[in-house]
Amino acid sequence: MSRYRITVEYDGTPYVGWQRQDNGPSIQAALESALREFSGEEILVQGAGRTDAGVHALAQVAHFDIERETDADTVCDALNHFLRHEPVVILDAVEVDEGFHARFAATGRHYRYLIRNRRPRPTVTRTQEWWVPTALDVDAMHAAAQVLVGEHDFSSFRASICQAKSPVKTLDRLVVRREGDVIVVEASARSFLHHQVRNMVGTLELVGKGRWDDSDVADALAARDRAAAGPTAPACGLYLTAVDY
Amino acid sequence: MSRYRITVEYDGTPYVGWQRQDNGPSIQAALESALREFSGEEILVQGAGRTDAGVHALAQVAHFDIERETDADTVCDALNHFLRHEPVVILDAVEVDEGFHARFAATGRHYRYLIRNRRPRPTVTRTQEWWVPTALDVDAMHAAAQVLVGEHDFSSFRASICQAKSPVKTLDRLVVRREGDVIVVEASARSFLHHQVRNMVGTLELVGKGRWDDSDVADALAARDRAAAGPTAPACGLYLTAVDY
Repeated sequence: MSRYRITVEYDGTPYVGWQRQDNGPSIQAALESALREFSGEEILVQGAGRTDAGVHALAQVAHFDIERETDADTVCDALNHFLRHEPVVILDAVEVDEGFHARFAATGRHYRYLIRNRRPRPTVTRTQEWWVPTALDVDAMHAAAQVLVGEHDFSSFRASICQAKSPVKTLDRLVVRREGDVIVVEASARSFLHHQVRNMVGTLELVGKGRWDDSDVADALAARDRAAAGPTAPACGLYLTAVDY
Repeated sequence: MSRYRITVEYDGTPYVGWQRQDNGPSIQAALESALREFSGEEILVQGAGRTDAGVHALAQVAHFDIERETDADTVCDALNHFLRHEPVVILDAVEVDEGFHARFAATGRHYRYLIRNRRPRPTVTRTQEWWVPTALDVDAMHAAAQVLVGEHDFSSFRASICQAKSPVKTLDRLVVRREGDVIVVEASARSFLHHQVRNMVGTLELVGKGRWDDSDVADALAARDRAAAGPTAPACGLYLTAVDY
């Protein structure tokens, strides 16, 4: 038996999310199906981050164990062959020792969130960005974002269905910048609560519109109550961009 | 009666092309349908460039005449309302005098072509780029592209169904550059033959692979025979980015 680590890119649009579910296709199930076709084995694929329905990944990391004698290049090519009709691709496969665990060994997760900030609705990129038609103040958003950096109880930014043991997390980095009419938000932490990035972005959007300022964000954080923070930004703007080990 | 010029962005993926056709939905028909809903009139929309099936536009220009008393902002908002379920959006509407013609008054057309040049298949952007897995030499492509700049008989790069009176066109600019694993080709001319940009890109890809060099491109051009040049690059990588008047 060998363990492999794979780096996976996907378009989350047609999926119910990373995790296998009864109500529709998932990225995990697509990978497990491709592994079954390759090896004839029932293989569990463990991902570093359980992205929600519609959330994309540029470099999700996962691992699995396989009985069949193979090598990393064959794993990569075979999976990509069996995934050829899915918007999921293996960027890289590496054999790892059995101590590696994609989820529990991760020391950092990096997300990017894209907002198309222009009056006309996006077309080509409509499943890849959150459309916010009113002009946002990016400098104000970036300044307010710094209130959230550090170790905090993020209960105000946590989905009610979140399964994390503790709402206390350390947010290492939260940067907001403009690139033309796209606003890019980058968030890094060892781990995030469920919906944390989308809830932070939905809150920063209120700051961008001028309805909230830094102290409102600080108050929302201090309230430790989901109802105190802004709405959840849409899934389609979110990308898992890297996982550190 | 008033004439309006509109700037239109669209995702070409679900359409048979710009032009109204019996075999499926077109961008022209979507715009004419929106105008019918707004005004109750049967209105012909004339575009600057008849993009093919799957080709995108970031700034197609079109014009139409309307009897209903209105103004540019209302035209823009009303069309966007009636187009809300289509990946087509009006970026801008301006009232123009009746001498303006989107197609015949255009003095320059600008296209961009995107090639994703990496081994793994694209996922999120799979309908927005041509995937070329083998490494391409961008400098060689750019150098060979300069052979095509200037006034030439472009018969070797012209689709058999092209309706232009003459195959002689002046290519003002053809630039090839790399941005990470995306290769960007930019082409500018007063007008292009049918499939000209895609046929030039398909030819430059042979150069990028090292199978052709500058002199092969010069020979292909001199042959004035479609069979002498490279294949037609896929539609999904092509964007109409601007039209000059």
